[in-house]
Amino acid sequence: MSYSNAYAPSAPELPESFVQQQHDGESRYTYAYPSYQPTQQFSSYSGMFSPETHPEIVRSFESADRNRSGFLEESELRQALSLSGYEGISNRTIRLLLFIYKIPVDSLLRLGPKEYVELWNCLAQWRAIFNRYDRDRSGKMNSTQLRDAFYNLGCVLPTSVHQLIVSQFDDGTGKTVDLCFDSFLECGMIVKGLSEKFRENDPGYTGYATLSYDVFMLMVIPFIATYD
Amino acid sequence: MSYSNAYAPSAPELPESFVQQQHDGESRYTYAYPSYQPTQQFSSYSGMFSPETHPEIVRSFESADRNRSGFLEESELRQALSLSGYEGISNRTIRLLLFIYKIPVDSLLRLGPKEYVELWNCLAQWRAIFNRYDRDRSGKMNSTQLRDAFYNLGCVLPTSVHQLIVSQFDDGTGKTVDLCFDSFLECGMIVKGLSEKFRENDPGYTGYATLSYDVFMLMVIPFIATYD
Repeated sequence: MSYSNAYAPSAPELPESFVQQQHDGESRYTYAYPSYQPTQQFSSYSGMFSPETHPEIVRSFESADRNRSGFLEESELRQALSLSGYEGISNRTIRLLLFIYKIPVDSLLRLGPKEYVELWNCLAQWRAIFNRYDRDRSGKMNSTQLRDAFYNLGCVLPTSVHQLIVSQFDDGTGKTVDLCFDSFLECGMIVKGLSEKFRENDPGYTGYATLSYDVFMLMVIPFIATYD
Repeated sequence: MSYSNAYAPSAPELPESFVQQQHDGESRYTYAYPSYQPTQQFSSYSGMFSPETHPEIVRSFESADRNRSGFLEESELRQALSLSGYEGISNRTIRLLLFIYKIPVDSLLRLGPKEYVELWNCLAQWRAIFNRYDRDRSGKMNSTQLRDAFYNLGCVLPTSVHQLIVSQFDDGTGKTVDLCFDSFLECGMIVKGLSEKFRENDPGYTGYATLSYDVFMLMVIPFIATYD
């Protein structure tokens, strides 16, 4: 499989800010973040979102932001997604979503309105793809469907990588477990997130990246969410 | 921090076979594995272990190998470790241990007697280190103790990597959670395993590794165990 289609999934649903994050936590660019501050208290959220934002996005953000900080922290994000019909998302996946969509210059794992809109739209797209491939409405997706779904998300994986991912979902006896939406999301975010991180270190699209030990570890460890 | 002490932890407790595994699943060397076959049934296990093996190792292996295959699969390994006093090891950590200690040429995640002895001795060493740093016998270890414990296991991490690992264990509100033995083990196995994999790709100890996209993904994904 050629490098060009085996790598570098087009990533319309990954925020630009994620790609531009640097390994050492510093940012290469100034993040054009709205002028409101974390300590500010909100009584109305409508001004924080652009007028064309789906009302459900604004409503779920407003309801979930219990401390009226203007940001969604981990438990608040879980609540906001639950209000939007995404129930049963695991702690691990929530943490992964926060890591990928968070404000790059922010040391805390939290989302502002802009990031929440990006995440919400991505989830809607992923849910639609999941439903399209879950033809028997079992709420589960098998490994072949997973491959097709990834393809439709613009992500063509090398066969060896796909097989390895699928093997991560066997139940310990060699039998592959079908994926629920949460696992599909977790799995997809890991693949897309790692691919983007790799691409940051391969600006010339050569298919190779030279990494120092520190950069390698700092790239990879956030995807290994350890706290449940 | 210089490369020489920030990287390449000495790894007496990681099996040589793990280091010699190749990314594509092939092996660069012939694995000198005992001549018995997976289909063989055992009535006595003593001949499978060298005479100086701790009797508890033989006993726990024998009791846990319920299908008498001569190997420990995932659920059997959990049982064997439980019999050896390692209770409450999570599915994720068990999977990680299997991945790191398994027979390289074997496509299945399982341990033979030789691998089980290596794992058992490693766990005994890690348990002793954990107990040494858990001075107040709380069964928990904080981030400073974690750093000291890693150091004693021959693994000196760059500060940035250590901080990132610790942040993975915060509870979502910025408060760091102390690590139980299972988390210590998971965390340590991830760090040591990833370091070994990196070192395989840096034979000259330059501190840098050039990785293709496929190799990078295949190196990293096994550490992101997704099935619980």
